[in-house]
Amino acid sequence: MTGKLQTAVLGPTGYTGFELLKILFRHPRVKTPLLFVREGSEAAGPLSDVFPHLSGNGTHQLEPFAWSRLRSAGVELLFLATPHEYSREFVPEALDHGLRIIDLSGAWRLRSPQNLAVYKFKDADPARAAKIAESAVYGLSEWKRKELKEARLVANPGCYPTSIILALAPLINANVIDSGQGVICDSKSGVSGAGKKPTPTTHFVEVADNFRAYNPVGHRHTGEMLEQLKLSSKDLVFTPHLLPIPRGMFSTIYVHLKTPMKASEVEQVWRDAYAARPFVRMFAPPRIPEIAFSVNTNYCDLGFALSAGGERLTLFSSIDNLVKGAAGQAVQNMNLMYGWDEKEGLP
Amino acid sequence: MTGKLQTAVLGPTGYTGFELLKILFRHPRVKTPLLFVREGSEAAGPLSDVFPHLSGNGTHQLEPFAWSRLRSAGVELLFLATPHEYSREFVPEALDHGLRIIDLSGAWRLRSPQNLAVYKFKDADPARAAKIAESAVYGLSEWKRKELKEARLVANPGCYPTSIILALAPLINANVIDSGQGVICDSKSGVSGAGKKPTPTTHFVEVADNFRAYNPVGHRHTGEMLEQLKLSSKDLVFTPHLLPIPRGMFSTIYVHLKTPMKASEVEQVWRDAYAARPFVRMFAPPRIPEIAFSVNTNYCDLGFALSAGGERLTLFSSIDNLVKGAAGQAVQNMNLMYGWDEKEGLP
Amino acid sequence: MTGKLQTAVLGPTGYTGFELLKILFRHPRVKTPLLFVREGSEAAGPLSDVFPHLSGNGTHQLEPFAWSRLRSAGVELLFLATPHEYSREFVPEALDHGLRIIDLSGAWRLRSPQNLAVYKFKDADPARAAKIAESAVYGLSEWKRKELKEARLVANPGCYPTSIILALAPLINANVIDSGQGVICDSKSGVSGAGKKPTPTTHFVEVADNFRAYNPVGHRHTGEMLEQLKLSSKDLVFTPHLLPIPRGMFSTIYVHLKTPMKASEVEQVWRDAYAARPFVRMFAPPRIPEIAFSVNTNYCDLGFALSAGGERLTLFSSIDNLVKGAAGQAVQNMNLMYGWDEKEGLP
Amino acid sequence: MTGKLQTAVLGPTGYTGFELLKILFRHPRVKTPLLFVREGSEAAGPLSDVFPHLSGNGTHQLEPFAWSRLRSAGVELLFLATPHEYSREFVPEALDHGLRIIDLSGAWRLRSPQNLAVYKFKDADPARAAKIAESAVYGLSEWKRKELKEARLVANPGCYPTSIILALAPLINANVIDSGQGVICDSKSGVSGAGKKPTPTTHFVEVADNFRAYNPVGHRHTGEMLEQLKLSSKDLVFTPHLLPIPRGMFSTIYVHLKTPMKASEVEQVWRDAYAARPFVRMFAPPRIPEIAFSVNTNYCDLGFALSAGGERLTLFSSIDNLVKGAAGQAVQNMNLMYGWDEKEGLP
Repeated sequence: MTGKLQTAVLGPTGYTGFELLKILFRHPRVKTPLLFVREGSEAAGPLSDVFPHLSGNGTHQLEPFAWSRLRSAGVELLFLATPHEYSREFVPEALDHGLRIIDLSGAWRLRSPQNLAVYKFKDADPARAAKIAESAVYGLSEWKRKELKEARLVANPGCYPTSIILALAPLINANVIDSGQGVICDSKSGVSGAGKKPTPTTHFVEVADNFRAYNPVGHRHTGEMLEQLKLSSKDLVFTPHLLPIPRGMFSTIYVHLKTPMKASEVEQVWRDAYAARPFVRMFAPPRIPEIAFSVNTNYCDLGFALSAGGERLTLFSSIDNLVKGAAGQAVQNMNLMYGWDEKEGLP
Repeated sequence: MTGKLQTAVLGPTGYTGFELLKILFRHPRVKTPLLFVREGSEAAGPLSDVFPHLSGNGTHQLEPFAWSRLRSAGVELLFLATPHEYSREFVPEALDHGLRIIDLSGAWRLRSPQNLAVYKFKDADPARAAKIAESAVYGLSEWKRKELKEARLVANPGCYPTSIILALAPLINANVIDSGQGVICDSKSGVSGAGKKPTPTTHFVEVADNFRAYNPVGHRHTGEMLEQLKLSSKDLVFTPHLLPIPRGMFSTIYVHLKTPMKASEVEQVWRDAYAARPFVRMFAPPRIPEIAFSVNTNYCDLGFALSAGGERLTLFSSIDNLVKGAAGQAVQNMNLMYGWDEKEGLP
Repeated sequence: MTGKLQTAVLGPTGYTGFELLKILFRHPRVKTPLLFVREGSEAAGPLSDVFPHLSGNGTHQLEPFAWSRLRSAGVELLFLATPHEYSREFVPEALDHGLRIIDLSGAWRLRSPQNLAVYKFKDADPARAAKIAESAVYGLSEWKRKELKEARLVANPGCYPTSIILALAPLINANVIDSGQGVICDSKSGVSGAGKKPTPTTHFVEVADNFRAYNPVGHRHTGEMLEQLKLSSKDLVFTPHLLPIPRGMFSTIYVHLKTPMKASEVEQVWRDAYAARPFVRMFAPPRIPEIAFSVNTNYCDLGFALSAGGERLTLFSSIDNLVKGAAGQAVQNMNLMYGWDEKEGLP
Repeated sequence: MTGKLQTAVLGPTGYTGFELLKILFRHPRVKTPLLFVREGSEAAGPLSDVFPHLSGNGTHQLEPFAWSRLRSAGVELLFLATPHEYSREFVPEALDHGLRIIDLSGAWRLRSPQNLAVYKFKDADPARAAKIAESAVYGLSEWKRKELKEARLVANPGCYPTSIILALAPLINANVIDSGQGVICDSKSGVSGAGKKPTPTTHFVEVADNFRAYNPVGHRHTGEMLEQLKLSSKDLVFTPHLLPIPRGMFSTIYVHLKTPMKASEVEQVWRDAYAARPFVRMFAPPRIPEIAFSVNTNYCDLGFALSAGGERLTLFSSIDNLVKGAAGQAVQNMNLMYGWDEKEGLP
């Protein structure tokens, strides 16, 4: 096992944690990760008690978190699959211990106080928190390869922003979008995005055969898009909807072009940006991505449609919210942090 | 409104309550029912806050339960859509107030102390409870028409027993089944049967794309089948399964015949029993009922298949667990209690 | 049965036909309709062979279409649940026979040759076809009450336009929308909208757990919105998506307001339009309609969200595509054609 | 690539083929397989036209079948993912070419003419067909390790028999079951088992929210259970049902024990049989397998429940019908045929 990286995962009992473990367990460059539970929230014991799906694959144990155990095992990289309040409080101490961290929560994705307000964090040391946030790398793998190499703290992007920013960034960078006429993001997500905790809105009978919008104003993920795409909050409209499926995410994005474009020109903008990015796949009209194409993979699938006049452009972006939208991108980021092949260990 | 019956429903905020209200609201022989909530468990206020589906259909109010309100409104019949512990405690007092009662819970369906044990009731006055249980009519409408006419307390049957007993009773009565060789009941139910409370096992992500058996030994509904069908617990095997659908129930029942029968003979046994029963439909081979045929209706659909030798008989029985398996049968029972057309007000 | 209307349905073996029959069979003002099949496409015989769901409700027969049978039965109103090519060819002759017609297909909804082009009709007598199209009433019940009274031919609206026009029309009429900045209609439909014919795209395995956009440019229903809302094709973007559910439709519509509005003002515009329209329900923020609220009903449920600045308005509109989007609206139109209560016979 | 096996797949455009390709593409011991289509039934061209899911993973081509191409590429092992009629006709010639074959269809699973009758094969050379059938190895991997080593033709088992035989075989071999009292197999399968061809019974609207039994007498897979388990057709009852899920299979099996057993004894019988079989997982009461545990894996998960008296035993068996029930077991068989680790390349 010489040469393999020792990692640990804190809080792996949710849906994202499950995906993360499945990937890490078969990743050729990492040792079996330590699995830590948060005191009071999760029970220690055999992992297969929580995920019977993993029975028969060794006898993994969930253990209470302890710095001493972390040190003695030689952990270098820590994945946080914890709630954002927890990550916000925990990260400063973890950095002090010299760890590199990939945080899958929303704790460190935002810099602007205005955008951050939605999280209502109560930082013990606000100055240090601001400094950490400033140094954190927003881990949208395709756009942060250089920064990831040296990153101490990676703020793994939200699932909605991943699907939306990957579609929009090349076009915004190419300066072809008239964002003043609105950037409309109509997103649809599978239920696992809402987490594993049973609530009235995740009850099977409430979700099955149903479809609904939620948080049509002020969803937490909006700030990520504003900051990463440098858009004005006046222009961006983001409406998340809940799909009656376990996993998968589809964003339909509407923009107005500064001047009419041809389909081949739109495609070229994307190809220029993503030619060397193995996890972005492009579908040219009349082909359109579907959730089924990317589910259980780390791909982000992009497609588009142009109005007859070539002025109105509709973008389609599809990911698996638990893989490219969370655990897969986290591992992709690890690969880039350690200079490995970006695709290593990913399905 | 002269001549219409004043009813009340206690606890109508669950899935069964919702179905019951939809039926009662358009029943031509009953006034708008009073809607009572249990203190501490359900909130009073506009019904459309709980069921936005019912918006625009008048301004129904959920009100705290009060005997005085019940009396002043002239309520004659009370539907209990309450948990079984609550019904067990509440019914004696309600009978003292002179009400007729249809209880949709399992509180009063069983007589044998052995079968009752599974409920762990702690009766304040065990002797009276036993007496009430003795007098309660097990409200399987097709088989208790006479008893229902005079019933003060109707114990509305469980959904599983409804689907199973309706299929088996004619054949057991006709003495053609060799029950010593086993009466195997393999039942599959939609998720609404598990109630509205969010739990890990009703979370959409846990149910969707999944299928599982549960409580394969000692399910609460077993006692109803044993008592109504007069079977030995040695012979009856009952395995409930959870289907990834909101509603509907399908039972596949396997029996051994005393002597080989022809399909026409099996069909005749059912026809003799149910010729004058409008809510039982029979499908002769090769036709087989499906959940989709009876969902949102009060029908129980029956079908069967015979082995080549004519000795092994497989029965199929399909109902909507919330209608014929709960609210619809409750209204059917009300119709029979008051001498009305059995089909009155039923979809 | 004196005083009841004799109707007939041609082509009732699809999903829309099934809904229509369920409504007509219990409509208090119509006799049992004659059920005609198209030669070569549908088989005559017992209706319960096609819809076992309807077993036990009388012995309805599907019969081959014949003018003589229609006349001798005294049919006054004919529902066409036929493909649009068929309706286009059939209607002229049916009008000559003096019938009133409600056509559920797209054959007669459009007037502009440009919009009509998508259907590729080959009219035997183009001049007469144009004249008939001119006289046809676009049956969006809430907006065509007066015209419906005298209508000979009602072109029942498409499901997508029904959900979209009902949300937009009051705001466009009130002149508050800056349509030059785009009217973005992102619609999601259940699979029954694609019809009953088995195709690769309606196979369960292709639809389940999936979500996709289709026909993002030039969907047949676009013309209806352009004509009814008097919008320019430059401004309207309409993207239909396929939901993995059997029925229900949800449209999210994005517009830019000429001047910022308050939520109460938006609501008032709708209330002014729909105060006396029993099948439109309004949900004020933060309440938002869901598909589950309107499924199996004839309601169109409306809701909205305003951006912080009050300039960008998002509309939500939810209907059952088979009821308000097809069969239910057809019956609502019949009610208005004959001067009956608009709600008569509707669930 | 020295030392890697060259394989080919004929007919990989269905659901089973898709799973097979996904596994073979990442199997460390095989070269990229040749992908052949059947003339007239499947189109040659880029694989990603059929499975956009596989875009971005190289440029695999479907090519018309040709013996010359097969020989020049040095193919040693051929997977047949073809219809059974096709496999029945094709295999004799393929054996003449010296190939080893894994046939995923039902063509060569049965030996008894009585059981074979259901397939209605018209063999050109019945004597040779019988001889081939005699020599074919029924590829239930866990029970045919020795035979597989030398096998020229492997008849890959049906999905239902795989789930049922794996549960029953150890108990039948241990002689604890009184099969004369009936061996009742109540199986439930996801829709992919019905194949990719669109039919009325696989239409999304017909399957969603529904559940039904089908072919309750004489299903094609019955013969496999009879032959492999040496049961009498008088004793075995097999009822397949259709679950509204894309994939996964669950069998509930009811048997009567010769003498009462304890749970630990039942478990021991299974453990004795499967201790060295990595793809069989056992769940002891009260734990029960669920479809979700084994989906997308090659596991067969077993569980059971005993009646209070210990005489009636209910078995639970869950597999992924496309993996352990088809493509996964085929690769497991390949591994055993070539003396590799049984788990090689399997998820």
